[in-house]
This record gives sequence, structure tokens and C-alpha cells, in this order.
Amino acid sequence: MFKILRVDMAAKSTKFEDVPEKWQGLGGRGFTSAVVADEVDPTATAIGPLNKLIFAPGLLGGTNCANSGRLSVGAKSPLTGGIKESNTGGQAGAYLAKLGIHGIIVEGIPSDDALFLLKVGKDKAELVAAGHLKGLGNYDTVAKLVQEYGDKCGYVSIGQAGENLMNSASVAFTDRELRPSRHAGRGGLGAVMGSKKLKAIVIDPEGGASSPIADKEAFKAAAKRFAKALSEHPVTSGGLPTYGTNVLTNILNEAGGLPTRNFSAGNFEGAEKVSGETLNEVTVKRGGNPTHGCMTGCMIRCSGIYVDEKGDYVSKWPEYETVWAWGPNCGIDDLDAIARIDYMCDDFGLDTIDTGCAMAVAMEAGILNFGDAKGAEKLLAEVGEGTPMGKVIGAGTATTGRVLGVSRVPVVKGQSMPAYDPRSVKGLGVTYATTPMGADHTAGYATTANILKVGGDVDPLKSQGQIELSQGLQVATASIDTAGLCLFVAFAVLDIPDALAAIVDMLNAKYGWTITADDVNDLGKKVLTIEKDFNTKAGFNKADDRLPDFFKYEKLPPHNVVFDVSDEELDKVLDF
Amino acid sequence: MFKILRVDMAAKSTKFEDVPEKWQGLGGRGFTSAVVADEVDPTATAIGPLNKLIFAPGLLGGTNCANSGRLSVGAKSPLTGGIKESNTGGQAGAYLAKLGIHGIIVEGIPSDDALFLLKVGKDKAELVAAGHLKGLGNYDTVAKLVQEYGDKCGYVSIGQAGENLMNSASVAFTDRELRPSRHAGRGGLGAVMGSKKLKAIVIDPEGGASSPIADKEAFKAAAKRFAKALSEHPVTSGGLPTYGTNVLTNILNEAGGLPTRNFSAGNFEGAEKVSGETLNEVTVKRGGNPTHGCMTGCMIRCSGIYVDEKGDYVSKWPEYETVWAWGPNCGIDDLDAIARIDYMCDDFGLDTIDTGCAMAVAMEAGILNFGDAKGAEKLLAEVGEGTPMGKVIGAGTATTGRVLGVSRVPVVKGQSMPAYDPRSVKGLGVTYATTPMGADHTAGYATTANILKVGGDVDPLKSQGQIELSQGLQVATASIDTAGLCLFVAFAVLDIPDALAAIVDMLNAKYGWTITADDVNDLGKKVLTIEKDFNTKAGFNKADDRLPDFFKYEKLPPHNVVFDVSDEELDKVLDF
Repeated sequence: MFKILRVDMAAKSTKFEDVPEKWQGLGGRGFTSAVVADEVDPTATAIGPLNKLIFAPGLLGGTNCANSGRLSVGAKSPLTGGIKESNTGGQAGAYLAKLGIHGIIVEGIPSDDALFLLKVGKDKAELVAAGHLKGLGNYDTVAKLVQEYGDKCGYVSIGQAGENLMNSASVAFTDRELRPSRHAGRGGLGAVMGSKKLKAIVIDPEGGASSPIADKEAFKAAAKRFAKALSEHPVTSGGLPTYGTNVLTNILNEAGGLPTRNFSAGNFEGAEKVSGETLNEVTVKRGGNPTHGCMTGCMIRCSGIYVDEKGDYVSKWPEYETVWAWGPNCGIDDLDAIARIDYMCDDFGLDTIDTGCAMAVAMEAGILNFGDAKGAEKLLAEVGEGTPMGKVIGAGTATTGRVLGVSRVPVVKGQSMPAYDPRSVKGLGVTYATTPMGADHTAGYATTANILKVGGDVDPLKSQGQIELSQGLQVATASIDTAGLCLFVAFAVLDIPDALAAIVDMLNAKYGWTITADDVNDLGKKVLTIEKDFNTKAGFNKADDRLPDFFKYEKLPPHNVVFDVSDEELDKVLDF
Repeated sequence: MFKILRVDMAAKSTKFEDVPEKWQGLGGRGFTSAVVADEVDPTATAIGPLNKLIFAPGLLGGTNCANSGRLSVGAKSPLTGGIKESNTGGQAGAYLAKLGIHGIIVEGIPSDDALFLLKVGKDKAELVAAGHLKGLGNYDTVAKLVQEYGDKCGYVSIGQAGENLMNSASVAFTDRELRPSRHAGRGGLGAVMGSKKLKAIVIDPEGGASSPIADKEAFKAAAKRFAKALSEHPVTSGGLPTYGTNVLTNILNEAGGLPTRNFSAGNFEGAEKVSGETLNEVTVKRGGNPTHGCMTGCMIRCSGIYVDEKGDYVSKWPEYETVWAWGPNCGIDDLDAIARIDYMCDDFGLDTIDTGCAMAVAMEAGILNFGDAKGAEKLLAEVGEGTPMGKVIGAGTATTGRVLGVSRVPVVKGQSMPAYDPRSVKGLGVTYATTPMGADHTAGYATTANILKVGGDVDPLKSQGQIELSQGLQVATASIDTAGLCLFVAFAVLDIPDALAAIVDMLNAKYGWTITADDVNDLGKKVLTIEKDFNTKAGFNKADDRLPDFFKYEKLPPHNVVFDVSDEELDKVLDF
């Protein structure tokens, strides 16, 4: 049966444990958040010995349900000081599930300075010295590991940012082609891994098998209905596979919700040049791959492979939020530069959102000019090198604002806002303010009803209806993250009633449960409540559920709107 | 009668207003905290336009009561994100009181980039362009202002740190000899002043007069009794005038409470070399001045003038906390280097505690070695120059720890701890944890009963009795800060019952009140409650009233003690 792998970095030991009663029925984010809440002192120093780093596939991980291979990473966040779950694509989620691993809990800190890697296989795990990987970026790290452990494993690693305990450090995961291009990006979890001197995890899936299923026939039927929904929805079957997530640049630009030059305007004159349409065109012309799945079993395939004019690999397709953070938000309209930046972020192991926003804040401070792509690439290179200014940028947007004395810093709970201005996409503003994660679009993706008119139609410029929209999405997202499904299945779930029914049926078929859609909803509420309680014990109160003041008095062109959802309304969002 | 001077930096206007009913009876800290609580949005960005900067003499300011010339500066702190009052010696407090100014409220931010200074005289005030002072340190700023406005004024200014909005920026005040050597050091209030583009305040006392007193004879008699108490207590009449506050280095070293090398030990092998005894000896030998009052009317005269081997001025005597922060805490035993550092901090306008602790954190990160005085001077010079690493240090200890990835960062609410290890001076540990100001020794100076055996005897190594000790001191301190008295009068107040009675009698005589010592106590509680409520609305809860975790599990030599006052006890301290 499924086991927990507990790794003690101080004792350099590993052991498998049964999943205790209290954590059964919790996978992915539900599991990581429950472990953090149960085992981490909320006032602990995030990069100190009392924090723990948890990896967990979702409840549907290791099955042939489409898009079920997401992996959640959780800890107390060095960036926000609160609880954090960041999830990722790549191969690791399915591999761990197939090895029967419910989750990995990494705890303690070695007393010496040596780096280690964790080898995980069928019913075995060991810590191995990894001094030879010290200082390497993720690409070089994985290249060495592939030489040592072969091309059948999944690799998890940190780059220079994680080793240097930067608050924007990500954890990297290899995709099907062994590129460390999928990241648990947000909240500085790479720094937690770095603090534990854990450079990498090698997951050897040999001997693994699909997750056991109580009622195989029922599961198969439900999985088919779920796949059908994904194949029918225009976003998951059309927009995303063709243009990637960057399909959103033109859409947000038109909606006046594309934050430009550090959230000073909602349109960018160079949007078209960095849009998904251009990305697709350039990729096709140069012989790259515009439709690529980041993990086995993905039906949506929003990823792609970006190549240069000679057809050589530059990076995986930068996500919309990456394109935005380093593009419009920095006044940059150079797609090649953005792709190179994306590669550097993947290689150093950095959250593209928090570092891109940090760069825009540095531009506002006059360290370099808006639009200076060369300067941005150069300064980003310094993050990898660990120069003083590189360390500032690597520490994220909030710290960069503090160091440089900038008053307009777009963060909530210390985490930078993503690619949707909260004044003109107010539903996302509500999510940014209230999610326990710090400003995060994925926590309750109101772009759906606000902009895309998926799952409803709520005017993005008005405060009405945003609370309910964000609440519903936050609850649903917590459930989806617990199931281990890619968030993009939500497009289908929101518009096609049978998609949710199919998820419920799959959960019941796999575990022999008899839960309903309401139970799934309650699971989401339970996870959010665990997270919010942790944050309260970590020092947050409702005043932390607010946007920075300038969003309330600076009018955003072109609609000239401010964020005007009241504090009283915000306080209701997660008050179940 | 007394007026409030309100200065609008956006409109470039000044006006005098009556003191509203609600703020009457509140001076100094009581006034600044009440104005912040009433007029500043607790979620405002501290260096943004919604914050306000308040200056206020105390209730006994402008009288001939000994040591009554302290000036409080208040705002929402950029360093802590909470309410802040930092008070200072120098001439400004008495001058403002004698001009009949109850307080100055500076609000708004200019839309352009030009610097201004505020000229304040008898019944007049105006904003004057001050572009010629841009980029100057406090010493050069004051030198220029003295040329322009003469040697009879009091000067308030910010250096490069304040102009650059650094979170450790102080506000400087001139002493009797026109040296900008007295500072409202803590909490980054210089950055708030810098954000408002207010480079300086010129206070011309001409036409001012002693504060009106309802019953002059009664006041005179009480003032005499108060002076007698100060002249009789061994600390205020012996230790402080002879050795300065640095009398404490040897005492704390012996007690095992002198935090050494970033709070790694409680003794420093070089303590004697930087002690008050050595300071006095060197000063006398070189022809400096070992006994100097920082403001007119000071009977304690704990300041001094430090000179080099040629007898030339280096700095005012560094305070104990400065000697400690840059000495033992950085492993430095060079008094000359520390005095030069003190001058640089005064000139750039920096809190010596937060920047010294930041330096020690940088040493822990390996940026330079512990004990490297030359390296420390060089890196401190970079703060004035505004290099990237200089900006990091100038942003304070917490930010330095974040940028450099250090897990042992001695801060509470983002403010660095001063010169008393909370593990072996546990009463101060309670104060650090619970004061609304962030880690601050002056907020409830438990060194008294813990170490000096003034006002009682509470074992510094045990948790018993610390809660009551800290609470009593925090309440008394809030009252003393509201009265505008130098905190050092507390030594006499704690040991000589008539000292407190004399303060009560002076307040009654001045204002025609009939209050009792209990009322003075209640005033302290009222001020603390205002402050705590503001912090709650700013996002703090009881989990913010904790020390960093390493103080709870790292044993401090030589006593090998941890901080073991329970959370439940800490929560009682300000729960009136």
C-alpha cells in the first residue's frame, strides 16, 4: 500500500511509514498542507531546521486519468512566512504515485555543509553525497544525473538560487524529455530545499505500477467521460494547445488588464509582439514545437518548444505569466529575450513571476530602464552569479522594493502579483488578497468568468460578484490541487457538468468511496481552512488580506479603475 | 496656547491648528501614537503618501524640569510595518515646546522630486526649497544650514540613508554644539521623512518662552525634588556621567548577556577593550570630554566627545548599543573604528543597532569575517554611497538576512534586537517579543532588575517574574516617553519613591491637574493599547510577539540557557 517516505537530513536517514489515519484521503495540496500544519511550528524560521519540505502526488496520481500527474510541494514559505503549496507538471508526480509513495517529508538540516541527493526507487530510498553538483544550474545538474542514473528516471533539483537560499528559488522537475523546465515556482520552496542541503531527488520508476483501483471498470468509464470533456472544451482543446498559456497576452491586453511597467497601465503597446499568436507563428516558422505536453497523460499540451533562428533549443515555451512578468511588466517586447530569460530562470531555479516583478520594481527604482531587455538579461545573470544586486532580485519583489526604496510594490503577503491587474480583473484581485498563498492567480483563477466568460460572466471592472466568484474558485482549486489534476481541467469542469461528475466517479472508483460533488467541495474548504489556520498561527490576520494601498487610489488606464472591493467583503471570502 | 503645526508636502502648505480635545493631555509618544492611530491607515505603505510623520515634545517639555527635553518622532514604520515612536535628545524638543508647538504633523508626498526644508519659528512656518542639500550627510547638511540660519537654531535632518528611503534611516537632531549626533534611530523614520522629500527642519527658538505653568511655585518645588533624586542615584549621578551608557559593556559581559558574533555567545573576549572604562580612559588621555549633556537641562550627561590621538573630534561618545552592535556583535574590539563607524552612522543618518546587526548577519553569511573592522567600515561607507550591498545593509537586519539567506536573524517584527541577549537577560527578551515597537530595549528596560538590581532583583536566567517586570517597565516607559523625560530618569524613579511623586506633582502644577501616580500608570497603559490596536489593524497578531526560533533551541554560552518564557505568558504582558 501507499507509504510516506520520511527523510531526515540531520541524521541522513530515510524510512517508509504508513499513512496515518488523519492524512488518509488527502493527496497533493491537501496532504502537503496537512503535514505542514501538523508538523511545522508556524513561527519557525522557514530556512531553519524546524521547517519541513513535503512532496505529494494527488489523489488521482498514478492512474490513467488525463492530466492527473501534478505534484504538490509544500512547506512554510520563506517568501511569505505563511503556508505554501506550489504544484508542478513534469514526470515526478506520476512516478512517485506509481512507486506507491503517498508523499515525501524532508526534515532537519545537516550540521555540515555537504550537499546530498535523495534516490527513490521501488520500496527503497537513500541519501547519496552530491558535492559534485554544487553550484550547478538545473540543466547541468540534470545532465550529470542522467549520465549517472539514466534516462528513465524523473529528476527534481534546485539550481544556484535554491542553493543560495533565495526567496524566489523554485524546485525544478524534468519533463518527458528530461528538461528541468517544470517548476514549483512560487514561494521560495527551492530555498527550503537548499537549506536542507538537498540538491536533487532521483526518482527511478522501475518496478512501479499504476495505482491500485477498487473498481477498474467504473474508473475506466469515468476517465473516458473526463477525457471527452477536455477534448470538447474550446480552451483546453483549442486555445491552449495552439498558443500555450500565452494565448492570454492579447486577451488581457484588450481587456485592459495586462499590467504594464510595474502595474502603471493595463495595456502594453508591444503586446502583439510577445503574444501567443506571435509565439506560435515564430515557433512554427523556425521548426520548434508548438504543442507539447509537460507530462505523460496530458491531453491539453499547452507547452511548446521555443527555438532560435537556427532551430536550436532556447527554452520550453514561456508561460503567459513569464511572458508578462518579463515582457509588458518590464516594458519589454522581445520574445527571443523573454525565452532566453525563461531558460535562465529555469536553469538558476527561479520563480519567473517574483523575479520578473522584482526586475520591474528595480526599473521603477531607476536601476535600469523599462524596456531594457539586454539590461534585464544581464541583471538576471547576476542572480545566478550571486552578485549583491543579483541576490536582491533573487530575494523577490517585496525585498527588492525594500532594498531600493520603492513605494509601489505589487505584493500580497510578500508574494508578487501575477499577470492580471487586480483593478481591471477584480475577481483575481479578491483571490490575490485572500488566498493563504500570497498573491497567486492559480489559487482562484477568476480570469475565467471575468475575462474568458467561462463558468459564468462577472464584469471584471465592477466589484459586484467577485467575492462569490473567487470563493467558489478557491474552493474548487483546493480540491483540484488535492486530486493532483492540472488546474486547466477547470475550464472544462466549469462549463461541462459531466466533467466534475467524472472526477467524483473516478475518486469513488479508485478508493471505493461514495462521495458526492458536495464532499469534493467540502474537501476544498477543509484544505483552505487548514491553510488559513496555519497562517493565523504564523502571525497573519485579516489586515494581511489586503492589496497594497496604491491599487486603491491609483487609477489604472485605460479604464481608470481602482480596486474597490471592500475590506468587509474580503473578510467573507474564506469565512466558511 | 499650544498649537499643532500641520505640514502638507503635496500642497506645500503649512498651518497651525488648535489641539483637538482628543489629543489634549497627550504629549511626546502619547501624542505621536495617537495621531498615527487616528490619521494613518494601518495598511498604508509606510513610504507612500498615506503615512504621516509626527514630531512632539513631551508633556513636561519646555520647562526647567531636569531632562525633560526629549522629542518623540512617530509614524507607521517602514521597518516593522507597525506603529513606531522613536525619541531623541538634542535641542529640538525644548525649542518646539518653547515655541508653543504641541506637535508637527507632516503629511502627503510632493508630486515632483524636489527637496524641501521646513522653517519653524514663533507663530510661523514655511516650506523652503532645499535642493542644495541633496545627497549631503547630516554633518554637511547642518554646516550649510548653520551658515544660512545661524547658530541659535535647532536642526533636524536626514542624511543619504533617509533620502534613499532605507529602512534603517534615522532622523538626526543637533545637540547644544550643533552636531547632528542625537538620533531618532529606530524603525526607519528617516525613510518616512525622505519619502516626503523633507530634508530638514530648522527650528528658530527666538521669541519662544518657557512653557506656561499653572502653579509655578509648586512646579519649582517638585522640579527640585526630582533633580535631587537624579543627583542622588548612583547610576544617574555616577556610572552614566563617568562612563556613558557604555558602562554596560563590562557589566553585560560579566553577566554573560553580551551578544557576541551575531548572538552566538554571551561573552566577548575583547569586551574590556571597548568598555566604558576604556572609553573614559582614552578620552581623558586624549583630551576629549567624558561628561557631556546632549541637551540643555540634562543632569545626567551620559554623552561625551570622542577624539582621536591628535585630539580631533571623531564622534560623540558611541552609546553602549552602538559599541555593542559594531563591537562584540561583529567580533570587533577596536574602539577607534567603532567611533568612526558611529560618526558615519550619524552622518548618513542610520540606526546603529539595525545596521550593526545587519553587518553581523552579513558576517555570518560570509560577506566578510567577524572581527574585520576595516571591512565593516568599508561596507558601511557603501551604505552612504548607495552601492547594492550598501543598500542591503541600509535596509536593516531582517532584509539583510533575507537577501543573504541567513537563518539566524535576531529580529522581532522586523526590527533587530539590541545589546542584551534575551536568553540570559530574559526580562528584555519579554520586552523584545511583546512591545509594539519591534525588538527594543528602551520599551521596557528590564536590565534594571535583571542585571543592575535597580528597582528589584529578578534572576535574568530564569523565566519567573519576567512578565511582570517587563509589563511594569513597558507601562512606566510609555508614561515617561509621553512626559518627554529622558528614559534614564527611570533609574531614580525605580529606586527613589519621591522621584515619581515629583513627576506627578510637576504635571499637576503645570497643567492644573489633580492626577495621581495611578493615573500616570493608566496613561502608559492607554498609550500601549493605542499602539497595540494599530498593530492589530496593520496585520499583527500574537504570533508576532515571539522571538526567532533559534533563541528557543540554541543554548547561549556561558550559561547555556535558552529563552523559555512560554507563549501563554507572553500573551499576558500587554493584555490589560
